Amino acid sequence: MDFAATKALFDLPPGMVYLDGNSLGPPLPPRSAAARVARTVTDEWGGGMLITAWNRAGWMAQPTALGGDRIGRLVGGAEPGAITTGDTLSVKVYQALAAALSMRPDRRVILSDTGGNFPPSDLYMAQGGLARSMGGHGHELVTVAPEEVVGRIGPDVAVLMLTEVDYRTGRRHDMPALIKAAHAAGGALVVWDLAHSAGGALPVDLSGAGGADFACGCTYKFLNAGPPGAPAFIYVAPRHQSGVAPPALSGWLGHEAPPFDFDQDYRPGMGIERMRVGTPPVLQMAALDAALEIWDTVDMQALRARSFELSERFIAGGVEAKCPPDLRLASPREPELRGGSQVSFHFHEGYAAMQALIARGGVVGDFRAPDIMRFGITPLFIDAGDIDRAVEVIAEVMDGRLWDRADYKARSAVT
Amino acid sequence: MDFAATKALFDLPPGMVYLDGNSLGPPLPPRSAAARVARTVTDEWGGGMLITAWNRAGWMAQPTALGGDRIGRLVGGAEPGAITTGDTLSVKVYQALAAALSMRPDRRVILSDTGGNFPPSDLYMAQGGLARSMGGHGHELVTVAPEEVVGRIGPDVAVLMLTEVDYRTGRRHDMPALIKAAHAAGGALVVWDLAHSAGGALPVDLSGAGGADFACGCTYKFLNAGPPGAPAFIYVAPRHQSGVAPPALSGWLGHEAPPFDFDQDYRPGMGIERMRVGTPPVLQMAALDAALEIWDTVDMQALRARSFELSERFIAGGVEAKCPPDLRLASPREPELRGGSQVSFHFHEGYAAMQALIARGGVVGDFRAPDIMRFGITPLFIDAGDIDRAVEVIAEVMDGRLWDRADYKARSAVT
Repeated sequence: MDFAATKALFDLPPGMVYLDGNSLGPPLPPRSAAARVARTVTDEWGGGMLITAWNRAGWMAQPTALGGDRIGRLVGGAEPGAITTGDTLSVKVYQALAAALSMRPDRRVILSDTGGNFPPSDLYMAQGGLARSMGGHGHELVTVAPEEVVGRIGPDVAVLMLTEVDYRTGRRHDMPALIKAAHAAGGALVVWDLAHSAGGALPVDLSGAGGADFACGCTYKFLNAGPPGAPAFIYVAPRHQSGVAPPALSGWLGHEAPPFDFDQDYRPGMGIERMRVGTPPVLQMAALDAALEIWDTVDMQALRARSFELSERFIAGGVEAKCPPDLRLASPREPELRGGSQVSFHFHEGYAAMQALIARGGVVGDFRAPDIMRFGITPLFIDAGDIDRAVEVIAEVMDGRLWDRADYKARSAVT
Repeated sequence: MDFAATKALFDLPPGMVYLDGNSLGPPLPPRSAAARVARTVTDEWGGGMLITAWNRAGWMAQPTALGGDRIGRLVGGAEPGAITTGDTLSVKVYQALAAALSMRPDRRVILSDTGGNFPPSDLYMAQGGLARSMGGHGHELVTVAPEEVVGRIGPDVAVLMLTEVDYRTGRRHDMPALIKAAHAAGGALVVWDLAHSAGGALPVDLSGAGGADFACGCTYKFLNAGPPGAPAFIYVAPRHQSGVAPPALSGWLGHEAPPFDFDQDYRPGMGIERMRVGTPPVLQMAALDAALEIWDTVDMQALRARSFELSERFIAGGVEAKCPPDLRLASPREPELRGGSQVSFHFHEGYAAMQALIARGGVVGDFRAPDIMRFGITPLFIDAGDIDRAVEVIAEVMDGRLWDRADYKARSAVT
């Protein structure tokens, strides 16, 4: 399917150029999502299926069917049966981290970076969940600058936990090199957060360089699968799956036997199934299913080419050519080093300027402290015309300094 | 609101008497749920609110607003600000258990029973998550028969974890007595699973007898809030809230500061907010909101009286008066000892007989191994006429032995 065709599947508001799909999907859901969710409410939850909907409507099988078969293709190289969905990214990060730590019981360091992690989901889980609570295992969370990660990997590191793509700048970690370094240093395991990668135009390659060990991601950003609460996903390399027993969150739907047998003793389920926890979020699964119906048609190499083309049009052909020079590129200039189909600029009055772009020209990006203006170039529903329109508005606003100085420090609680 | 009025709010299929609301809500959602969910898809996820929906559509505040203010009233005695919602029951049990264990670091026993726990959610979490994994804290899960729980409580017990209402028989634990015994024995903390209690006709009294410490429950059974994945809830006694830091699942939405500030260090949020984890399941929250709109109108004492009246009509006035005596009451005969608005009978060919009730008379209960026929008497949409119709069908099927013997052992994977 070409990208004009995918764009037509989203009911985009007229007069808006939505460059924030990297934060929260498109401004209106995929056209099919409302109908798909309504069908789940009326025909599956309702409709007289009752508890047989667990099988007849596929509720039981859905988390892994949506994961392994469909998200798996988008994070390139993920083997069949290596991904399941559910819960939130926070919970999946916790599971992955706990599983990895339990496989390296003699080591105490969780290594991460100060840069690209979306701090809440990952660092908080490591701090609160594992390093400090639960009676003091003595795990220590060590964070270094992104470029110092390779040098810090050593035999004391149990787990290297990294967000592949920096949510502020789109800077992308070299996944194969880091996996190789971690495995070489006596076998540290690597947990990847793909929140800003999956569906984000650069193909993720979990199997590359010896293969990632664990990965997690969310589906409400690039994957367009919903409002918050869209199911997260977790990848466990097949070679590790039988060794992850029992996982930290040993839920009844991760149990081996038919869960309604109500065995008193937990036995982990086969393969990736053991990473399921409680009931699947059926309504949100329906929205994910609708979103993946679009992704099912997308060729990832074509997506990558389109992302490069649009991003270059935006950077060199657009903002840098037509806007004042105090808008400085914060993303790597080399396309290969960027992930997440996202382009960011430094600008000291960025918050106020972003408000002006939204108010005056319907160009919606977002702002990240202290000075990052962030624009998501999401090829499924952004085209060259949108890029040109955005550049035009940005140039006009920047040239004329057309923002309200009162906005400068008045950041809202939720930006 | 009277119960004829609440019944009219559910779009019940004609010809069916649904006595399984204790397992999975009503057979069709509350009439308002489809519209409420559709509104969330179209006007909140879509509708141009974009990320401002976090505030404008109430996504950020919703988990605790639905919890403390509304579910709180249904579990009697829950103080304002003591309950929040989200995730699944499995995750909330894990959080409660981890929090309680961290408050009793010198004790190693998690005490539970072999009877009424819905084993997967609770025992599995204790076994896999806390007792065995994570490097061996040496926690031990001890289970005894329900009637032996009081006698086993001792100074080695860190946490007593119990499901208030037995999912098979409706037998109800004496919550005040058990809390008193646990607190008297040097201060063991008590975690209650209210999955089969909340909304289940007998008012729960979390504040009774010195007060429960922690409680959790789900909303897709009696509370009618959805298909699986409906948000769970967690209660933390206000006196403990500041001591639970950091909880085991320290998520970004349980963080103190505005979460979009992206602090690198986790600081637990105020009060119950710290028990939030990741993004709230917005679509499922919408369904919960619609379901609670009905519950908001229900007087809990009137619900209790109605439950007693209907259950007695079903047991003594119905099944015991009109059916063969080999259908033996499995629930306590004394109404005060039953919870969950649920009545069960032993019958050795119960699975086959239940299939016959469903197929021949549209009377939908369920079966739990080895020989329990279970009937949910849910006053919001079951009335005296339904009870009489159910008794008539049960009598007819039992008198005539009208079931297929081939069903006897042919239990489906999902019963």
